[in-house]
Amino acid sequence: MQVLNSLQDFKAWVREVKKSGRTIGLVPTMGFLHEGHLSLVEQAKAENDFVVMSIFVNPAQFGPNEDFDRYPRDFERDSMLAEQAWVDVIFAPSAEEMYPRKSQLSISAGPLASVLCGASRPGHFDGVLKVVTKLFHLAEPDIAYFGQKDAQQLAIIESLVRDFNFPMEIHRVATVREKDGLAKSSRNVYLSEAERKQAPKLYEALKLGKKAAMQGRDPVSEMKGFLQSETSGVIDYVELLSYPDLTPSPDGQAILALAVQFERARLIDNIIFTLKEN
Amino acid sequence: MQVLNSLQDFKAWVREVKKSGRTIGLVPTMGFLHEGHLSLVEQAKAENDFVVMSIFVNPAQFGPNEDFDRYPRDFERDSMLAEQAWVDVIFAPSAEEMYPRKSQLSISAGPLASVLCGASRPGHFDGVLKVVTKLFHLAEPDIAYFGQKDAQQLAIIESLVRDFNFPMEIHRVATVREKDGLAKSSRNVYLSEAERKQAPKLYEALKLGKKAAMQGRDPVSEMKGFLQSETSGVIDYVELLSYPDLTPSPDGQAILALAVQFERARLIDNIIFTLKEN
Repeated sequence: MQVLNSLQDFKAWVREVKKSGRTIGLVPTMGFLHEGHLSLVEQAKAENDFVVMSIFVNPAQFGPNEDFDRYPRDFERDSMLAEQAWVDVIFAPSAEEMYPRKSQLSISAGPLASVLCGASRPGHFDGVLKVVTKLFHLAEPDIAYFGQKDAQQLAIIESLVRDFNFPMEIHRVATVREKDGLAKSSRNVYLSEAERKQAPKLYEALKLGKKAAMQGRDPVSEMKGFLQSETSGVIDYVELLSYPDLTPSPDGQAILALAVQFERARLIDNIIFTLKEN
Repeated sequence: MQVLNSLQDFKAWVREVKKSGRTIGLVPTMGFLHEGHLSLVEQAKAENDFVVMSIFVNPAQFGPNEDFDRYPRDFERDSMLAEQAWVDVIFAPSAEEMYPRKSQLSISAGPLASVLCGASRPGHFDGVLKVVTKLFHLAEPDIAYFGQKDAQQLAIIESLVRDFNFPMEIHRVATVREKDGLAKSSRNVYLSEAERKQAPKLYEALKLGKKAAMQGRDPVSEMKGFLQSETSGVIDYVELLSYPDLTPSPDGQAILALAVQFERARLIDNIIFTLKEN
């Protein structure tokens, strides 16, 4: 496995692979790897000649009061896990390499960013779109892999690739969960012991909500009541939307999504399912 | 020469060329070709294995009261000229092919679009960025060619490519002029006979302004006075800015640019030069 930090070295490696006609699968991450990331690698490995994992905690997607500084980082552990998963190249640039000058241009997600996490994290998805566009142009992947846990991000990146004709595909990978149902997340390390015990209730709330929605009831109030009684976290949002359009009043493919703020970690989770029309 | 109208056919052709390791030069146009376009082709021909010319009158870059409907079009003449200039492929998609659905995402040029043509054509450069990004992803060129006549567009597209790490280069090509100095433009056909006689005064005004600026005087008022007395057109703007940053009070590389609205044609022109500090 190679670790490349400079854009120049990475682009040279990409050029060589492209020239040889072989394929690249890209797994973009912010590091602090867990089984969710490794399942992306596994799928990328099965579908491409080479797998690139980018590790970059992207300052552009954190708000001024968010957790950029204390986002967990452990490059040694990450590179060991990546090597064990047969990643071919880790691309881990510095912020100076990625953002050498203040950019005047921006990509906006529009209405897709007005709901769910976009509503409580203004500018977040613009930052995601900026770094993802840069990574796609640098890595020139045939396929890039994103987890369904970040379902809004996935929907927005699918729109990006389709609307701007990027010469590549996006593959969705299912959320990986702990045995008790908690979605794997780098931020789970910031849960207190008591919060960690409550955290599986998020997924339980989603399953409750799905049942309510399938029976034609409004799932949101039931879920909010359940979360309030079962956890100490503060509910940021609970929403039922169409997927991947993220519009209200779905009648086909739907997403139930939630965000709960605990003391030091904001957790998100979702389930995507088909609502039958009554 | 091949003419390809569908995205699918065009992408298949691009795939084959890329697989063979050969290079593509892209000349994006809105058709109604003149010598300016052909000089782009000539340079592309000299620097690449294949030259693609796109011909697409992009609805996204015209405002509601602008000249989209009566923008001049003559595909037969264009394809004859392109063939004579040894273009390999004309890519001429329909608007339905390019914009099959309403896009939620947008790219904004930010402050670079707040001056010159951007100030009088709101949304114009967002539309340019949208179509250019799509064309770059479809054609996957090694180099794309743009004329200096559209200097603001050139500056914005150079920023796009640099800030988002597109794996390609932008080459600037000098403005081609009629013998009397008028910059070649597809819109020149809409000048009346009297206006056509006045139109070279735009370039004369720029040369006057450059002389004034080099001598430390403010060129703008002199140029406006000259244009008002020598033409029947209405001045849209005359500005002196840094280039390519497009900020006020330049002291190095500078652009003097103007736009004049005639009865049925809005003409733009500019000169780029180095201002010596006193």
